[in-house]
Amino acid sequence: MAQKVVTLGEVLMRLTVPNNKRLFQTVNFDVTFGGSEANVGVSLAHFGLKSSHITALPTNEIGERVARFLKLNGVNSKGIVRKDGRLGIYFLEAGAMQRPSRIVYDRFNTTFGDLKVADVNWDAVFKDANWFHYSGITPAISQSAADVTLYALKEARKRGITTSGDINYRRNLWQYGKQPLDIMPSLVELTDIVIGGRVDLENCLGIKDENWEVNCDMVKKKYPHIKAFSKTIRNAMTASRNELTAVLYVDNKLFTSKTYEMKNIVDRIGGGDAFMAGLIYGLLNLNHQDAVEFAVAASVLKHSTIGDVNLSSKEEVQELVNGNNVGRLLR
Amino acid sequence: MAQKVVTLGEVLMRLTVPNNKRLFQTVNFDVTFGGSEANVGVSLAHFGLKSSHITALPTNEIGERVARFLKLNGVNSKGIVRKDGRLGIYFLEAGAMQRPSRIVYDRFNTTFGDLKVADVNWDAVFKDANWFHYSGITPAISQSAADVTLYALKEARKRGITTSGDINYRRNLWQYGKQPLDIMPSLVELTDIVIGGRVDLENCLGIKDENWEVNCDMVKKKYPHIKAFSKTIRNAMTASRNELTAVLYVDNKLFTSKTYEMKNIVDRIGGGDAFMAGLIYGLLNLNHQDAVEFAVAASVLKHSTIGDVNLSSKEEVQELVNGNNVGRLLR
Amino acid sequence: MAQKVVTLGEVLMRLTVPNNKRLFQTVNFDVTFGGSEANVGVSLAHFGLKSSHITALPTNEIGERVARFLKLNGVNSKGIVRKDGRLGIYFLEAGAMQRPSRIVYDRFNTTFGDLKVADVNWDAVFKDANWFHYSGITPAISQSAADVTLYALKEARKRGITTSGDINYRRNLWQYGKQPLDIMPSLVELTDIVIGGRVDLENCLGIKDENWEVNCDMVKKKYPHIKAFSKTIRNAMTASRNELTAVLYVDNKLFTSKTYEMKNIVDRIGGGDAFMAGLIYGLLNLNHQDAVEFAVAASVLKHSTIGDVNLSSKEEVQELVNGNNVGRLLR
Amino acid sequence: MAQKVVTLGEVLMRLTVPNNKRLFQTVNFDVTFGGSEANVGVSLAHFGLKSSHITALPTNEIGERVARFLKLNGVNSKGIVRKDGRLGIYFLEAGAMQRPSRIVYDRFNTTFGDLKVADVNWDAVFKDANWFHYSGITPAISQSAADVTLYALKEARKRGITTSGDINYRRNLWQYGKQPLDIMPSLVELTDIVIGGRVDLENCLGIKDENWEVNCDMVKKKYPHIKAFSKTIRNAMTASRNELTAVLYVDNKLFTSKTYEMKNIVDRIGGGDAFMAGLIYGLLNLNHQDAVEFAVAASVLKHSTIGDVNLSSKEEVQELVNGNNVGRLLR
Amino acid sequence: MAQKVVTLGEVLMRLTVPNNKRLFQTVNFDVTFGGSEANVGVSLAHFGLKSSHITALPTNEIGERVARFLKLNGVNSKGIVRKDGRLGIYFLEAGAMQRPSRIVYDRFNTTFGDLKVADVNWDAVFKDANWFHYSGITPAISQSAADVTLYALKEARKRGITTSGDINYRRNLWQYGKQPLDIMPSLVELTDIVIGGRVDLENCLGIKDENWEVNCDMVKKKYPHIKAFSKTIRNAMTASRNELTAVLYVDNKLFTSKTYEMKNIVDRIGGGDAFMAGLIYGLLNLNHQDAVEFAVAASVLKHSTIGDVNLSSKEEVQELVNGNNVGRLLR
Amino acid sequence: MAQKVVTLGEVLMRLTVPNNKRLFQTVNFDVTFGGSEANVGVSLAHFGLKSSHITALPTNEIGERVARFLKLNGVNSKGIVRKDGRLGIYFLEAGAMQRPSRIVYDRFNTTFGDLKVADVNWDAVFKDANWFHYSGITPAISQSAADVTLYALKEARKRGITTSGDINYRRNLWQYGKQPLDIMPSLVELTDIVIGGRVDLENCLGIKDENWEVNCDMVKKKYPHIKAFSKTIRNAMTASRNELTAVLYVDNKLFTSKTYEMKNIVDRIGGGDAFMAGLIYGLLNLNHQDAVEFAVAASVLKHSTIGDVNLSSKEEVQELVNGNNVGRLLR
Repeated sequence: MAQKVVTLGEVLMRLTVPNNKRLFQTVNFDVTFGGSEANVGVSLAHFGLKSSHITALPTNEIGERVARFLKLNGVNSKGIVRKDGRLGIYFLEAGAMQRPSRIVYDRFNTTFGDLKVADVNWDAVFKDANWFHYSGITPAISQSAADVTLYALKEARKRGITTSGDINYRRNLWQYGKQPLDIMPSLVELTDIVIGGRVDLENCLGIKDENWEVNCDMVKKKYPHIKAFSKTIRNAMTASRNELTAVLYVDNKLFTSKTYEMKNIVDRIGGGDAFMAGLIYGLLNLNHQDAVEFAVAASVLKHSTIGDVNLSSKEEVQELVNGNNVGRLLR
Repeated sequence: MAQKVVTLGEVLMRLTVPNNKRLFQTVNFDVTFGGSEANVGVSLAHFGLKSSHITALPTNEIGERVARFLKLNGVNSKGIVRKDGRLGIYFLEAGAMQRPSRIVYDRFNTTFGDLKVADVNWDAVFKDANWFHYSGITPAISQSAADVTLYALKEARKRGITTSGDINYRRNLWQYGKQPLDIMPSLVELTDIVIGGRVDLENCLGIKDENWEVNCDMVKKKYPHIKAFSKTIRNAMTASRNELTAVLYVDNKLFTSKTYEMKNIVDRIGGGDAFMAGLIYGLLNLNHQDAVEFAVAASVLKHSTIGDVNLSSKEEVQELVNGNNVGRLLR
Repeated sequence: MAQKVVTLGEVLMRLTVPNNKRLFQTVNFDVTFGGSEANVGVSLAHFGLKSSHITALPTNEIGERVARFLKLNGVNSKGIVRKDGRLGIYFLEAGAMQRPSRIVYDRFNTTFGDLKVADVNWDAVFKDANWFHYSGITPAISQSAADVTLYALKEARKRGITTSGDINYRRNLWQYGKQPLDIMPSLVELTDIVIGGRVDLENCLGIKDENWEVNCDMVKKKYPHIKAFSKTIRNAMTASRNELTAVLYVDNKLFTSKTYEMKNIVDRIGGGDAFMAGLIYGLLNLNHQDAVEFAVAASVLKHSTIGDVNLSSKEEVQELVNGNNVGRLLR
Repeated sequence: MAQKVVTLGEVLMRLTVPNNKRLFQTVNFDVTFGGSEANVGVSLAHFGLKSSHITALPTNEIGERVARFLKLNGVNSKGIVRKDGRLGIYFLEAGAMQRPSRIVYDRFNTTFGDLKVADVNWDAVFKDANWFHYSGITPAISQSAADVTLYALKEARKRGITTSGDINYRRNLWQYGKQPLDIMPSLVELTDIVIGGRVDLENCLGIKDENWEVNCDMVKKKYPHIKAFSKTIRNAMTASRNELTAVLYVDNKLFTSKTYEMKNIVDRIGGGDAFMAGLIYGLLNLNHQDAVEFAVAASVLKHSTIGDVNLSSKEEVQELVNGNNVGRLLR
Repeated sequence: MAQKVVTLGEVLMRLTVPNNKRLFQTVNFDVTFGGSEANVGVSLAHFGLKSSHITALPTNEIGERVARFLKLNGVNSKGIVRKDGRLGIYFLEAGAMQRPSRIVYDRFNTTFGDLKVADVNWDAVFKDANWFHYSGITPAISQSAADVTLYALKEARKRGITTSGDINYRRNLWQYGKQPLDIMPSLVELTDIVIGGRVDLENCLGIKDENWEVNCDMVKKKYPHIKAFSKTIRNAMTASRNELTAVLYVDNKLFTSKTYEMKNIVDRIGGGDAFMAGLIYGLLNLNHQDAVEFAVAASVLKHSTIGDVNLSSKEEVQELVNGNNVGRLLR
Repeated sequence: MAQKVVTLGEVLMRLTVPNNKRLFQTVNFDVTFGGSEANVGVSLAHFGLKSSHITALPTNEIGERVARFLKLNGVNSKGIVRKDGRLGIYFLEAGAMQRPSRIVYDRFNTTFGDLKVADVNWDAVFKDANWFHYSGITPAISQSAADVTLYALKEARKRGITTSGDINYRRNLWQYGKQPLDIMPSLVELTDIVIGGRVDLENCLGIKDENWEVNCDMVKKKYPHIKAFSKTIRNAMTASRNELTAVLYVDNKLFTSKTYEMKNIVDRIGGGDAFMAGLIYGLLNLNHQDAVEFAVAASVLKHSTIGDVNLSSKEEVQELVNGNNVGRLLR
């Protein structure tokens, strides 16, 4: 039977300054869309999985634009709620050389922040699903969004669906009165696969050590149901040159991927989400080492296209894992 | 001495869908900026007046972008307050033929809505000013914005500065608990020149008659200090073909402009503000008939360029009034 | 129950010369897609109907591009067959003023020309369908395409589905050995609603008279099952200025639409298909006069956007029928 | 034998402000090239004539760019002299609606102004030529350019080649010490066909009357060798709407063309040169009435494409004369 | 006397996806043209040689577009045959980083495939020629194209013209019933300079060894008239980073070029053809070592511009050979 | 009190060929503006200094365009003189890989060359100024420009303002009869900080040694008032890869900056001017070592944006000096 993933999260409009201009001088923007969890869902759809994304979009034509974006990229509309309100926006000034990239957020008071548990048709969304994925961004937006996340995890559990959480800590969110430590532990209780680095584990779970593996062990001790931890290690020399490696920690074993040197990076936004999608695909279909290799290769390919989402097929990712085609002209 | 105008109001980012595309399918936007009162200030700066605009902009690079826009267009920064927050946005899908233009607003919870009387250096802004202009949009945004408007009018009056108000009624604003009739009358008490049509007079001042001139007389009776009323009459056959006439009502006399047939309209947004600026210029420098002719010609020229603001010089407007240059190739 | 339409026909890549350039000098093309019958299906999907399109697309990434275009525009993939081969292309040099528009076709030896009856899952496609639409272009392409058309009509009949045919005669097709008169009569035998002008009726059915209504009567005598005839009457003054009227002939009664003056035409390609879609919608949901008004208004709106397909909703069309919104700025 | 035309004159780089922007705000330019006489030569090449253009271009890559432009448009390089120096430039802000078009010239001290008689290989250029064309712009540039013009006319005469002169008077040239009356009469002495309006005849030849035909008669009396006079009559309502008529005065007979209404004008620059080329073609191949009709139709088509030069074929012009194809979609 | 080269081969329209987009999502294409042998002819024209290209183009405006492309790039039209039919097309999705470039071909049933020996004016084309060049692509297209190739080689030989063949093997052509081994040997019989790698020699001539030089010796034994073998060695790390070296094997001596590291590659298509043109230029004008250095430098410069053809002058190539100017700002 | 810098020099329009095209094939240009000394003034304005630029601009709309450019970038208009004439232009073909960048100048007979001492309001310009900067380009343009430079230096001295001169030698200027050695020494007499390399010192001051430091010592001996020498050392591997280091020589001590590897260079034009601005800022606000570090980091950041001027703030430069943010995504 076809694999099916459900994701939950906000989708933002991304307005990118073109042609190496600065944000304060631009006269036009390129328009794309993204959101950590939707990026995962889109990427998995491009890998051939069925994909539903739970989100709320404004009833206006901006909401319609996003709905078309998701549809075009293979995500079905069962989880899409339409409500009055606004879509969050972020402005991206892409860096170059030693000049860093900059994001300006305009993401408060959005439709998604008002999403309620009762807005979603949970049965329709979770029908035949194998996997549910969320991130630490959603519960950071509003109490309501945090409630929906918890409810979704419980629903997933109830149905025996594997769950993953990218528990990334976003310092400039969490403005509605709660702190990560108030909320994240109860979500992790219901999460099978945890993605997060040292800083995330410390801020979201209050577990702290210099060594990430040690941290993972500590988390595992507290939440013994967790099956795996993972993260990517990015070494960013300049805006256009990074190195990328990934690690997957399962059953006290560390699986480390090959390290990719990425030069002439086209767009790094969404690299982590492409990794996440690759990891979900890998854990569903490959052994541990192959899974982490697949995931990091997916992330590398994301860096070669414009936009938050990875547009690569699973065959393209696999060719990169196998070291084929790189630098070739495929006719 | 140089004439100097002070304007007050919100500036929005305008994201326009290029190339006759629909909003729900676009992959890029052209970026400009506008706001009813700022448009008036910019246009007057292009006519050679000194111009200050009182507004609030976010401290981030989006705010910086707007500050550069105003500076480039001749508006000085004395009235610009920088505060944390977001800039309002509107999306424009330009119409064509029988297809109407559409605007989607994303203008709530903005920095401007938080502008406080104490944020502004009133002495610096009003130094040497001849004219103060506001519109009915500002008091419709928030209590705080309404307070600033009233305060500004009082400051202007105190200094013997002429005041004008475009009392346009915006149905989809006024969401903070007050109604136009709660606020607008006290502003009109302090206004010398009133711009507005029948619907505006009814909604904002509660004065209602089928005939606009009769309405103006009724308003005048209630607010005998008012010196003049004016409005444009737009006959819109299609998105690209309109006719435009203006009327100015002073001392029981009606001055009617020539009617312009506008075909192949490039961009109608800001046409009313260009008229307003033209009228201010005219009332400061010309007789009544010439003033209304100048104002409507200014509005016509605005329709020939992209963006909310009129980029024409006073010489260019005057040439159109005189019937010169139209259809010519100036070498 | 939701209305559902099935269409059959080739989809071509349209490469348009931008910016009023000539085809022989261009350095870039805008890319869209279209095909008479697919345009009908897309337009009906934008009106809210379920829509399946039977076609064949190459297995390569060009085929993938078209599949995404159809999906994005609401047409489901049940009727899409993927086979090795090429996609047909047409190059469009848009006219201006007195300069006519030009199309250069590159549409022979395409994947669609190889479509076989056995390639299509007829049960899946026709499930729950109310309407089947084809045009005279398909049987003009290849024997195989003619066979598929006949088979589809029989299948539709078998299931009690209403059928419509735009029997437009394309002089530069019909190159595979058959003539329209060899094929079209047998298709019309199975067609409920016939769209076509005098020239089409003459060439495709061998019925000829100076008067279109008389012709329709003659056809009706021969094919008494036909329920209605329709066509648009285009008066083209220049490339950017046309007048458009439509007529619907049912039960010896002629319903004539309002005449629209279209100035500043954005793109006339697909105007007839937008009409066809409007007519299908109208016949399914409105009375005869309202149907022809809806259909011609749909066609007018198509002329205001770029691309072969009509992107208007049924509400937008209805507003134009009602004379609302034209020339307005909708906020 | 093939007809061959020789033209003489400066070629300028044209930098056009795109997208209805004003010159003082633009961030990019479209690049084309033009010059009154070169425009005539290019147009005749598109009609199928052999075409040589005598000009001087800088030795740098800007000169190379122009050389490629001429070559691409069918003008051979026999008359092109390469010398150190600069290319003249003009900036074009295209008008819209009631806003006039504006040209800013930067055309002094150019390579062409230094062109010397000895630079040109006259035998190569005039070999097999039927027609020589110049305009009043060239002698207005520099003494040297005036000398070359006179020399070229003498060479043409010596070889029995028909000569035409568009004696347009350019007020802002003639800055090198000579006045039109010092130079133009001696050129007209050697000119068979004179194009020019009332103002041109007055300024260049000192012959003045309210009526153009009377003026032509007066000129003819003084220069009895002249075979024909012609001019276009442009009625410019707005930047995008003009009417165009042409008159040809031969043997005391006035041939008047049909009047074309031109709406939605794409680019009017070069309209007169397109007329001139049409007239040369017409006088070489058609009767008088047909010639003036062909010429004005050529000018109309020029208005439908971007750039100074007319890209229409003689077949396309003839179709417009015949009233065919207008408003059609040619497949 | 000027050197003159004749080339023979198909020209394709290249439609390139701009801005790092994927083919399946693009909304526009950049248009250029290329074909292995035409690329060689164009490059040699840019080096200052006379250049004729034998090809067939459709009679429509697409054919006209190609004719203009060739003319603009210095290739004369003596060998261009115009016939009814279609132009071959290829779609290019340029790679980036670890993502490979992709080409989708749409090149069957083209006008060129129908080119007949009798269509070409062989005397006109070969007049004063020094060199004839073909590639293994042409005989792979159709029997007719193979016949023309053989005929052209015989004509060249008859006239004592040096011949070169780039015998590249294209797996996805050769679909008309013949195999390379049926045709290529008879062409090599008439070829003086052979370009090809190990795989080409094996597939086209049936000669096979692990070592390219050994292979060349084996070929030479069988075809002792061959004067030289050459090929480039490309080491492609990623889509944007390659290393390039070339070897020339003459009289049992191997001349190896300097190795260039190419980073930030702009466009690699046509790199081999630029090499070929450089080699022809070099063999005509330089010693063996200098020839191979010139050829590889020409190829490197090709990678720095967009499009299939090398736009560099021979002076620019020579500067690179000399190690001058690299990284400089030439004023 | 705020620091204020005065700069003097010509501003040119820069027309850049976009998209890796060659100059001889381009159909459009990007428009920016620059000039060595204005670039310095703009950069200092972006660092927060007050900035006046002394220059002459044409009275036409091109001059207006430049005035807007300077205003937008924080340079006040006190030193801007408007006169009839033309603006200098330069065309830039940006290099890539091993292909060098090329500039074609069109900068003679400009308005700036006619600037007279009496045109400038020296008191207004120098009011409250701390620093005056010029370069060796200005005196190379015309006698008048040389006179203005000398006068400005004397005025600066009179007011106790620090002076700096970038004495870069431009071989292709100096065409008005004077040589650098006629003029530059008298300027250096009045200069506190000298920027220039070995070649500049030799050509402008006639002081020559293989070693730059020795040269500086020799200059210092002759002009003992000089406080510091500086220059950048650029190692240019390719058009897109350079290394940059800077040295500052004060009081017999050499301060050497860190060396930056610059890959994927966006635009190198103005790199030296960005350094100069950084150095002025540094000498006004930092110690010697920090000053040279700040200056070279400013230059590196300039290479990451399009246009002649450095758009970085002093905070951004300082972050790069501190090694922060590089390769990061700032949210």
